[in-house]
Amino acid sequence: MIDARHIAALRGLVGEKGLLDKPADIAAYETGARYDRGRAAFVARPTSTAEVSAVVSWCVRNSIALIPQSGNTGLVSASTPDMSGAQGVLSLDRMTGGFELDQVNRTVRTGAGMCLSDLNAKLGEYGLFFPVDLGADPRLGGMIATNTGGSRFLRYGDVRRNTLGLTVVLADEAGTVLDLSSQLRKNNTGVDWKQLFIGTSGAFGVVTECVLNLEPLPRQTATALLVPSSSQTIPALLTAMEDALGSYLSAFEGMSGNAVRAALEHVPSLRNPFGRGVVPDFVILTEVSRINAPRKGEQKLDAALEEVLAAIWENEDALLADAFVGPPSELWALRHVLSEGVKHAGRLIAFDLSFSRGDIMRFLDRMKAEIPQRFPGITICDFGHVGDGGVHLNLVVAKDDPRLADEAFEAALREWVFSVCVEDFQGSFSAEHAIGRKNQSFYDRYTPAKLRRLAAALKAEASPGPLGSVAF
Amino acid sequence: MIDARHIAALRGLVGEKGLLDKPADIAAYETGARYDRGRAAFVARPTSTAEVSAVVSWCVRNSIALIPQSGNTGLVSASTPDMSGAQGVLSLDRMTGGFELDQVNRTVRTGAGMCLSDLNAKLGEYGLFFPVDLGADPRLGGMIATNTGGSRFLRYGDVRRNTLGLTVVLADEAGTVLDLSSQLRKNNTGVDWKQLFIGTSGAFGVVTECVLNLEPLPRQTATALLVPSSSQTIPALLTAMEDALGSYLSAFEGMSGNAVRAALEHVPSLRNPFGRGVVPDFVILTEVSRINAPRKGEQKLDAALEEVLAAIWENEDALLADAFVGPPSELWALRHVLSEGVKHAGRLIAFDLSFSRGDIMRFLDRMKAEIPQRFPGITICDFGHVGDGGVHLNLVVAKDDPRLADEAFEAALREWVFSVCVEDFQGSFSAEHAIGRKNQSFYDRYTPAKLRRLAAALKAEASPGPLGSVAF
Repeated sequence: MIDARHIAALRGLVGEKGLLDKPADIAAYETGARYDRGRAAFVARPTSTAEVSAVVSWCVRNSIALIPQSGNTGLVSASTPDMSGAQGVLSLDRMTGGFELDQVNRTVRTGAGMCLSDLNAKLGEYGLFFPVDLGADPRLGGMIATNTGGSRFLRYGDVRRNTLGLTVVLADEAGTVLDLSSQLRKNNTGVDWKQLFIGTSGAFGVVTECVLNLEPLPRQTATALLVPSSSQTIPALLTAMEDALGSYLSAFEGMSGNAVRAALEHVPSLRNPFGRGVVPDFVILTEVSRINAPRKGEQKLDAALEEVLAAIWENEDALLADAFVGPPSELWALRHVLSEGVKHAGRLIAFDLSFSRGDIMRFLDRMKAEIPQRFPGITICDFGHVGDGGVHLNLVVAKDDPRLADEAFEAALREWVFSVCVEDFQGSFSAEHAIGRKNQSFYDRYTPAKLRRLAAALKAEASPGPLGSVAF
Repeated sequence: MIDARHIAALRGLVGEKGLLDKPADIAAYETGARYDRGRAAFVARPTSTAEVSAVVSWCVRNSIALIPQSGNTGLVSASTPDMSGAQGVLSLDRMTGGFELDQVNRTVRTGAGMCLSDLNAKLGEYGLFFPVDLGADPRLGGMIATNTGGSRFLRYGDVRRNTLGLTVVLADEAGTVLDLSSQLRKNNTGVDWKQLFIGTSGAFGVVTECVLNLEPLPRQTATALLVPSSSQTIPALLTAMEDALGSYLSAFEGMSGNAVRAALEHVPSLRNPFGRGVVPDFVILTEVSRINAPRKGEQKLDAALEEVLAAIWENEDALLADAFVGPPSELWALRHVLSEGVKHAGRLIAFDLSFSRGDIMRFLDRMKAEIPQRFPGITICDFGHVGDGGVHLNLVVAKDDPRLADEAFEAALREWVFSVCVEDFQGSFSAEHAIGRKNQSFYDRYTPAKLRRLAAALKAEASPGPLGSVAF
């Protein structure tokens, strides 16, 4: 176990503010955004790559396990310690330094502890942004470790696509610093090692700095809510919108009526976009946005969107039951509060799944058909990213349900949902939250033995020390 | 050495047509697109993943080295055998089967031996294309093994960005088939193993099938030639064009006057876009394209491009010396023949480099300043991808130059150019041709020891057999 001498040694590496061990100080780092309650032996808060290297090296040499923690907004128990009390947290929350902007290259180099919102606030002054759009406000290191995708994946892709370079500290005795901090967009001189650290939950190394691709801020945006005639018409609606709008289409998000209602109840200040009317069973939030400067006489985007929707209404065979253009700020406020809204509706058993775009609605229809029979009384509050195949399937156990704290019930539910997703639909059991303690067993089950052996060999070679919450 | 029994055994695995060993039959497979002349012991031409697995397994068990060969259009001696006569070629040229199109998902699953042009001809019927645009016509497996970028990287990215899944045969005793053939866009369930096989020249495994992202074919395209006031104004011109045109901008390519002149001489049927006038020292070919269906009253793209250029002309401080909109087919024909044109101008010593976008013209200026002094008599025929930082620096030794066949001269030139690129500009010595025998020594020199050890360990674990021309 970790004793006072260990703490003193670590404090010597990162200073007084850099090492927390009082229960009140470390509580926030022990608790996940939704599920976890672990116990940390300490929280190290380095401020530089050199300090991260020193801490990691010391912990490897002393066989002390470290859990890298970034914004701690993830949902799979990847960034919090377990209950043993033997793990330390390596927080990136002071790694916020550095902001080297290259406007011609459209890139920025910054510390991995910077919050997404802080980065975008700084970039906004230059008309740029990091285009991975999320409801939560994570730090960059965690976004890299989970390869988040978010709501505008359809146009901008995920973190992997927008990461040009990384600086990484390996969990070896030396705390080796890998400088993979390229600013290049084209570079094929061997294995692209940065890929190893994207989406792997910090198990292969601690990302301390990153070089990110930036995009010009849209100058005009318009949004609409689309009510499809049925779930079966949604794929055709998506392709019709892509056909009509091309690269202007920047989001095509699905929201179940249950999720919308939960959000409206949770945040009474939100206006119900359906007025006093009934919230539909399923609705699409779509966005078009234009980067280029408007030219004289050019149609406004909301008018263009209305025209496209009117044409789909008239020409395509009954794809739409209803559609209306509404203000982006209002519609996105609703979209981004869905996650919090469903969390307050009861006990949430959440899944972050993805499918081929043609399968997503078929999967949801199957859930709606079978869950009431297999798991009666459970409310399905799904929402997600129809444009890229992602689904946040949220299953809510009501507050007065006797199964509220039933772990075996949750386990049975997870087993069944994951098996339908992976085995029947060739879907992914973790679309954009990566692997953590919460879904480790499904990694073990669904990853071919050969790939598990390759991962273990690579981990042993690159970062043999105990790092992260995942056993690769 | 390989004897008749070996040949007979291999023929048993892939049939009569699948195994070539007559000198006349294998000559084409021994010769690279530009540089190489090697000697193959045989050429195996499997038609399925199972046959690839059988051949690879047999060769690993018999310690026979295999060089995977796809379209054989690369320029770094990655896909041809060496002069020993002990290596076999594993050609993908019969792996052309399969064309599973998913229009809703915008993906296709196909054999890795399919030619880019064949794929796009099939896809064109559905209004789709694979958006990695090249002057050459490679097969898909080689595009994956080199992670080609091409001329429209600025909008669509490289092969890495557009690859969703792969099927790979590992060079182990079993010829293990890795099924990484996902159709998913979001999937973060561990190490993204397909990345290991992208851009690594076939050394880690033979790609036999792929699942690719597709994009809608542009419905309207307009192109222009821009003559910048000086090389220093090009970065500002690029950002001004991005600002004005946003996601419509699909190419921003640089062409030196020397390369344009060489192309015009090589293909007399090409019209000189500068009329009888002098070809400028450096010219930008830019393209705008629109995917979405045109709406009533909407401006045509060539008119929009003209308007944008006129505004830059008027408002930006002397960025442009001249500019004119011209027909896309004509301007792209010129662009795509540059590579062949410079090849015929003399002996070509070619470099495929990349830089941060702000550095590219500074690097070219340095070459133009120093090469005449250090290597007098050499003509610089550069062209490339200013929009993404890529430069094809072509140095031509005239046909009557006494150094025409001087290997030591070429080596000295390569040493100097690579050292300026990598050491002074933090550039890449292989932007989109990956590693082959031609640049292996620079991989060895410029790759940190830790990364070389990681690559070697991974190679030993995944594909211990002798596969490919690169020693990772």
